[in-house]
Amino acid sequence: MTPPHFLTLADLTVPQIKRLLNHSAVLKASSQPWLVPHGSLPAKRAKSLRLPSQSLFNKTVAMLFSKRSTRTRVAAESSAVLLGGRALFLGKEDIQLGVNESPRDTARVLGGMCQGIFARVGDHSEIEELAKYSPVPVVNALSSLWHPTQILADLMTLHEHAHLFALPAEQAETADASTPTPTTAEPKKHSNPRPHELPPLRPLTIAYVGDSANVLHDMLVTFPRLGHKLRVATPADAQYRAPPQVWDRVVALGCDQNDGISWSTDPREAVRGADVVITDTWISMGQEAEAEQRLKDFQGYQVTEELCRAGGANPDWKFMHCLPRKKHEVDDEVFYGPRSLVFPEADNRKWTIMSVFDLVIGKWDLDGEASSRWLEIKGGKPSKKSKKESPKEAH
Amino acid sequence: MTPPHFLTLADLTVPQIKRLLNHSAVLKASSQPWLVPHGSLPAKRAKSLRLPSQSLFNKTVAMLFSKRSTRTRVAAESSAVLLGGRALFLGKEDIQLGVNESPRDTARVLGGMCQGIFARVGDHSEIEELAKYSPVPVVNALSSLWHPTQILADLMTLHEHAHLFALPAEQAETADASTPTPTTAEPKKHSNPRPHELPPLRPLTIAYVGDSANVLHDMLVTFPRLGHKLRVATPADAQYRAPPQVWDRVVALGCDQNDGISWSTDPREAVRGADVVITDTWISMGQEAEAEQRLKDFQGYQVTEELCRAGGANPDWKFMHCLPRKKHEVDDEVFYGPRSLVFPEADNRKWTIMSVFDLVIGKWDLDGEASSRWLEIKGGKPSKKSKKESPKEAH
Amino acid sequence: MTPPHFLTLADLTVPQIKRLLNHSAVLKASSQPWLVPHGSLPAKRAKSLRLPSQSLFNKTVAMLFSKRSTRTRVAAESSAVLLGGRALFLGKEDIQLGVNESPRDTARVLGGMCQGIFARVGDHSEIEELAKYSPVPVVNALSSLWHPTQILADLMTLHEHAHLFALPAEQAETADASTPTPTTAEPKKHSNPRPHELPPLRPLTIAYVGDSANVLHDMLVTFPRLGHKLRVATPADAQYRAPPQVWDRVVALGCDQNDGISWSTDPREAVRGADVVITDTWISMGQEAEAEQRLKDFQGYQVTEELCRAGGANPDWKFMHCLPRKKHEVDDEVFYGPRSLVFPEADNRKWTIMSVFDLVIGKWDLDGEASSRWLEIKGGKPSKKSKKESPKEAH
Repeated sequence: MTPPHFLTLADLTVPQIKRLLNHSAVLKASSQPWLVPHGSLPAKRAKSLRLPSQSLFNKTVAMLFSKRSTRTRVAAESSAVLLGGRALFLGKEDIQLGVNESPRDTARVLGGMCQGIFARVGDHSEIEELAKYSPVPVVNALSSLWHPTQILADLMTLHEHAHLFALPAEQAETADASTPTPTTAEPKKHSNPRPHELPPLRPLTIAYVGDSANVLHDMLVTFPRLGHKLRVATPADAQYRAPPQVWDRVVALGCDQNDGISWSTDPREAVRGADVVITDTWISMGQEAEAEQRLKDFQGYQVTEELCRAGGANPDWKFMHCLPRKKHEVDDEVFYGPRSLVFPEADNRKWTIMSVFDLVIGKWDLDGEASSRWLEIKGGKPSKKSKKESPKEAH
Repeated sequence: MTPPHFLTLADLTVPQIKRLLNHSAVLKASSQPWLVPHGSLPAKRAKSLRLPSQSLFNKTVAMLFSKRSTRTRVAAESSAVLLGGRALFLGKEDIQLGVNESPRDTARVLGGMCQGIFARVGDHSEIEELAKYSPVPVVNALSSLWHPTQILADLMTLHEHAHLFALPAEQAETADASTPTPTTAEPKKHSNPRPHELPPLRPLTIAYVGDSANVLHDMLVTFPRLGHKLRVATPADAQYRAPPQVWDRVVALGCDQNDGISWSTDPREAVRGADVVITDTWISMGQEAEAEQRLKDFQGYQVTEELCRAGGANPDWKFMHCLPRKKHEVDDEVFYGPRSLVFPEADNRKWTIMSVFDLVIGKWDLDGEASSRWLEIKGGKPSKKSKKESPKEAH
Repeated sequence: MTPPHFLTLADLTVPQIKRLLNHSAVLKASSQPWLVPHGSLPAKRAKSLRLPSQSLFNKTVAMLFSKRSTRTRVAAESSAVLLGGRALFLGKEDIQLGVNESPRDTARVLGGMCQGIFARVGDHSEIEELAKYSPVPVVNALSSLWHPTQILADLMTLHEHAHLFALPAEQAETADASTPTPTTAEPKKHSNPRPHELPPLRPLTIAYVGDSANVLHDMLVTFPRLGHKLRVATPADAQYRAPPQVWDRVVALGCDQNDGISWSTDPREAVRGADVVITDTWISMGQEAEAEQRLKDFQGYQVTEELCRAGGANPDWKFMHCLPRKKHEVDDEVFYGPRSLVFPEADNRKWTIMSVFDLVIGKWDLDGEASSRWLEIKGGKPSKKSKKESPKEAH
């Protein structure tokens, strides 16, 4: 059985993406009561608590991180704890990969000891090599080309804030961007979603103003498929355009059709009609030497009230950024102001990565109705009634 | 609700300090039977074991450590395991703080994923900044000004060794330094303390011979409030005196009143009548460049039998040091000899940090009678009787 | 009670080595069903699952690693999770050892907070110093002289592949190399081993072609005692011979008797009649400066089909390597071909280290029939029937 690697959202179908997002919301809702200060939960509520999925119980995920990370790392480690397991942070100083050992051998060895690999490497070909030889699922924690877990967090955050993007009532009933053909969406489902299910979201116009890097690439192959329009502005130089490996995926998925993506070199053009404005770092890890040139190229790209007014954004536009943030990318007024969704977006890194860990690594199940029956009934967890059914220690 | 940060003992009341100390003893007593070699506990004893508090169950504490650490780090990680959770070590090479990201943004992001932050940073203003913006409790793991968890371990160790500082019987009954007015202490309580409660301690004379650094600062704002006299010797140069930010707290708490603190430049003067002699490193992390000058300034400050004889210490004086230790600070005879409490002191780093993690981070409760009822009854732990009451996995 | 340190296989008796190996197989068999993708186990099978030993429940093992490590580290961390505990990775950048603190003080301090120390240090005297002063078991994770956990994994792998080394039926019944006097082995036991017990292995001829480093040293003191012949080829220079500290142990254990060890400078000589060919890195961590000279000295030592044909190895010879591997040591045809046992060998690093952690650190019991009754009955784990017997949280 081939393990279900997850290297970019381009590899996933729309139902799989929705499943990951809805499952994130379920895990968030079921985890949060366990995380309040001990004793602060009313007894009645505490009594009915359910553990989140324990699909990593006894298991370990190897985190191969050759670059700095705060959000991705802490999201992974803290959500592995919630899933009953452990994510092992293996920094570039600590292991042999890239110094004494090939990705091929490393993948096979780690896959023999751990139940998943979560890798933040350099060139995307490295993670492809890991996936090729790993006997367990490999998940991309950021590569030169893609950053899929970030876009899951962005989407979860937009859905959670769907009320901020409300349409007049008569339009709202039929507008659910997470349904590919919104006009056929079933109104009943909207008015009564399943508990914890993410609220539906109307089709948005999303502006991305900045460098064409891994974060944008996963937006390009995803937002149009979910019904959102993506308006991109990058500097004129060719290095700021999506590379062919990415654009080929965009075309193959039809994301460039139906006005799904528009591209310019003018940030004002990009923010026209935008419900959401997103940017990212101008100088990625490893590009420090090019800093001066890049700062010049991105003149006029800082996200500000003025830019969005001048460009004609939706007056209720919201702001997102994957962090860490530099002031030249977005000013304090926007970043710390009421338009900013950046911290809920950061929080959701945890729940979306937890969803990926649970469905991809814990259950190898991106499609079905993931069952949690096994552990619930069989043990390792305290739901056993009688002693003779309970798991025992091996001698 | 504002999270209960813990940046220095100066922020705590005497009852809060006592509560942390007594709770340390409770946690130590309840944890130790779980830590013996498996199988070595008599069946009857094992049957009645209670888990220590599980207030970190499912939870994570972010450890922001920009400096080397052995004791503080291992104490934190091992006690988080005992509390059912995990402390995530985030070293200076691994995350964005101080490289690409402000303390403000880091605090908000980590506080959205973890349930506490334990930080060993540089300048004290950094941890104040973290506390200002963190939605979860921030605990000081050592800063330029304060080192509160170290002084908790020192006090716990002194109480555990109270018998070494015994007074003649008629005096002992009324002398309990942990009661601010020792003469009114209730004799009954002394003869029959609650199980695991720390033994009372008579008022001690404590000499500190060395640099006025973070360790001394927390002694200055604490020992006099608990009835102990603190006699300090530091070199004459102004850099070896407590800075104004610290001394203001000393004065505000009245610790300089009633002969609570005396200060000289002569170590022999400081150890006069001392029951306990404490020193610390002369060259803190980051001061390596000043090493030569500092070694000169501290001529005559090495703690030895001879120094204490010459100065007229209590013949039964004991020695403490927060480690790591250099030989110039204290000779082998004292350090490895019968006067030395340094290793019990190091052991107690674990139990006092566990107490802080439990009451500050796990329960947000430094004042009340911390309840552990929630988890005991509701689960995540194996004390459930019937299946229908038990926590179940979320779907 | 003196803690049972484990610094080299030379310290262990043959029954102790066999006990560690058989226990590895038991732990592997009992752990694997917990590690499959969640939900993929048939309900009936899941119902009868037993947890592996939980002898590290609530416990922590300090991993003092001053050198890079992939296999040893991940094996340790992942198996500690399976045993219910945590192994804390303490890298050379993070703690005070070797910078500000002696092995003596570090051993005492860590031993007061953790229940075991797993150390990969430099000179072997460092780990001896740790063991001298540690109050808890110290296990060698690789030193300048010895690498005992590697050889346990090699032996486990050979036993698991015993069918590849089968003899004609009439010989097989009496040939069990793991019994010191194979001719007296009880045939019944062979035909019906206890569940999970490792299959017996006929006496093998094992060639080691390479540098006389820590990996070979533990083979020298172990293979002959288990009935295997060891044929070594190293370059002529004296630095490639086992040092006196090692050879003294070889002689003391009688491993050089009865043709147990033969030594030459010709790899073709060494592989004559070999059932297994093993090599290791030619340039260990720290020897990078000598690389050029070493590459010259090892001319002709690359393990290839041709070398083994020329030398007259058993046509069914198998290959092992502790990894990471360089191509000059062994070519791709052998390394990735059907003769190669290198990846099962790497996988078994986990189960053998888990066995050492369980018996040495968790139970202090290398001799008896390790009981797991305590935790099975008493708690921390979900096998409790009635509430009043269950472990409760301490107040």
